[in-house]
Amino acid sequence: MELDLPVFDKLAIIGCGLIGSSVARGARASGAVRTIAIHDASPAARETIARLGLADQVTDTAADAVQDADLVIFATPVRAIGEAARACAGAMKAGAVISDVGSVKAAVSEALLAACPPGVHVVPGHPIAGTEQSGPEAGFAELFHRRWIILTPQDRQDDAYLEAVQRLADFWSALGAQVERMDEKHHDLVLAVTSHLPHLIAYNIVGTAADMEEVTRAEVMKYSAGGFRDFTRIAASDPTMWRDIFLTNKDAVLEILGRFTEDLQALSRAIRWGEGDKLHDLFSRTREIRRGVIEAGQESAEPDFGRKRGA
Amino acid sequence: MELDLPVFDKLAIIGCGLIGSSVARGARASGAVRTIAIHDASPAARETIARLGLADQVTDTAADAVQDADLVIFATPVRAIGEAARACAGAMKAGAVISDVGSVKAAVSEALLAACPPGVHVVPGHPIAGTEQSGPEAGFAELFHRRWIILTPQDRQDDAYLEAVQRLADFWSALGAQVERMDEKHHDLVLAVTSHLPHLIAYNIVGTAADMEEVTRAEVMKYSAGGFRDFTRIAASDPTMWRDIFLTNKDAVLEILGRFTEDLQALSRAIRWGEGDKLHDLFSRTREIRRGVIEAGQESAEPDFGRKRGA
Repeated sequence: MELDLPVFDKLAIIGCGLIGSSVARGARASGAVRTIAIHDASPAARETIARLGLADQVTDTAADAVQDADLVIFATPVRAIGEAARACAGAMKAGAVISDVGSVKAAVSEALLAACPPGVHVVPGHPIAGTEQSGPEAGFAELFHRRWIILTPQDRQDDAYLEAVQRLADFWSALGAQVERMDEKHHDLVLAVTSHLPHLIAYNIVGTAADMEEVTRAEVMKYSAGGFRDFTRIAASDPTMWRDIFLTNKDAVLEILGRFTEDLQALSRAIRWGEGDKLHDLFSRTREIRRGVIEAGQESAEPDFGRKRGA
Repeated sequence: MELDLPVFDKLAIIGCGLIGSSVARGARASGAVRTIAIHDASPAARETIARLGLADQVTDTAADAVQDADLVIFATPVRAIGEAARACAGAMKAGAVISDVGSVKAAVSEALLAACPPGVHVVPGHPIAGTEQSGPEAGFAELFHRRWIILTPQDRQDDAYLEAVQRLADFWSALGAQVERMDEKHHDLVLAVTSHLPHLIAYNIVGTAADMEEVTRAEVMKYSAGGFRDFTRIAASDPTMWRDIFLTNKDAVLEILGRFTEDLQALSRAIRWGEGDKLHDLFSRTREIRRGVIEAGQESAEPDFGRKRGA
């Protein structure tokens, strides 16, 4: 696909952990932007970011990074986005595209629209990509290759806004991602199912196992090849990021969690009463779903979580 | 470690799916036995096994395979073991070691002891290894390399029995596994935590997601990079094998499932009431547990589930 590069002149990244630093590296490697400014609230992180040479400018304030930026991407934990946007709203250029990478969209969209000045184009986004690592050293340029980026544009039909959405889409295409557009509430429900609930379950099961008195922590770890290990990997994800996700996507998460628990109780009942056919039916059905995942082309030789650099 | 090979003269494998065929391949490759006989209840499977050249003898009855065997390994789904053992008990040689590879031990031990004649040595076993594949073509010789094999010997102290246990341990060492001995009830509780509950949860979450009306199956698959994909892989495991596991390890599974559900309700409450600190605490704690898994040396660059041939 032919893209007109660079897509944006100056990119500002606010918050530079795994995702923010991967955006920086990806933008650099692809030539999607001409210049990059990064701000992170942590002085130690700013030092690391500078040392790693991730940006042309590493700024002490968000406003300094955002000055003259054509694209601003907020990559802080989702509950910090509102405050981060308020802190630099005054420096935002007219016509700038304001976006993010948060795993929850309705709450973030609301926070950005409340904080940003008129005259900018707020186009929230969420790249479906990540590893269980954290911090600016963990990022890599290829993180978004062949991954979906979901944009949840506002319901605006004016040419300037539509063009802004397209430019943001082009930016993400340059980073190797596949762009999808979606209603923000629908996004939050889909992600509650495919990501938030799985993480909650993984966190829970690791906690439950750790509390067993008769089974030692060492035994759990030793024999964790039996399925448990995959859960520990998911449950090692960044605690702050995930706390924020559950608190901001509360309604969708509680809805799907309610259904999950009902279904689990039905399974528990089938086990207690020895209803083998019911169990076999469910397990056969889920095997077919797995085959569907492979056919949808979302499966490679490696599981997605724990994607490694250079992959 | 110096082993005296072959450890056994004739090995009989009853039931030849993923695990049984891996035992056959591993025994062949390592020289742990001199000759191998395989029986499987399915004529189609027997044909495949013969075509693949997995055994010196592929027999139409279990009794024919077991005749003169020094080591008999039952590798059928766990609820089929009792009947399989009864079918060939009459052909078992005095002094033969009778074992299995089932994921549940107390129920299997009871079934084997009830079915087998006096004069043989029943030493149940469980290799903590597998993939989500099924069938005799799916097995590979290296499946057990650096994996734990848990033996749950009876409480017998006579020399002949202790020697039988040691020989079985040597057999598994020859296949590359690390041998552990454990009480059978304790095994069932440990495995309920590290394997059975994780699988049940994975099955459940895939089923719950499939039932969402507002989120299409296609969307779930498309965006399944976000954690869900790992669950679909686990939930693609053999339905028959897993039905049997849940039905035969009922007590331990229901116990741990009860705890899991209580903990999940507590999490649900914390989300509903916005208790961010509670969430953050749990997520930080589970991250530490993950680090413990890595330190225990159970982590390689690849997650265990979905282990590939030649790995």
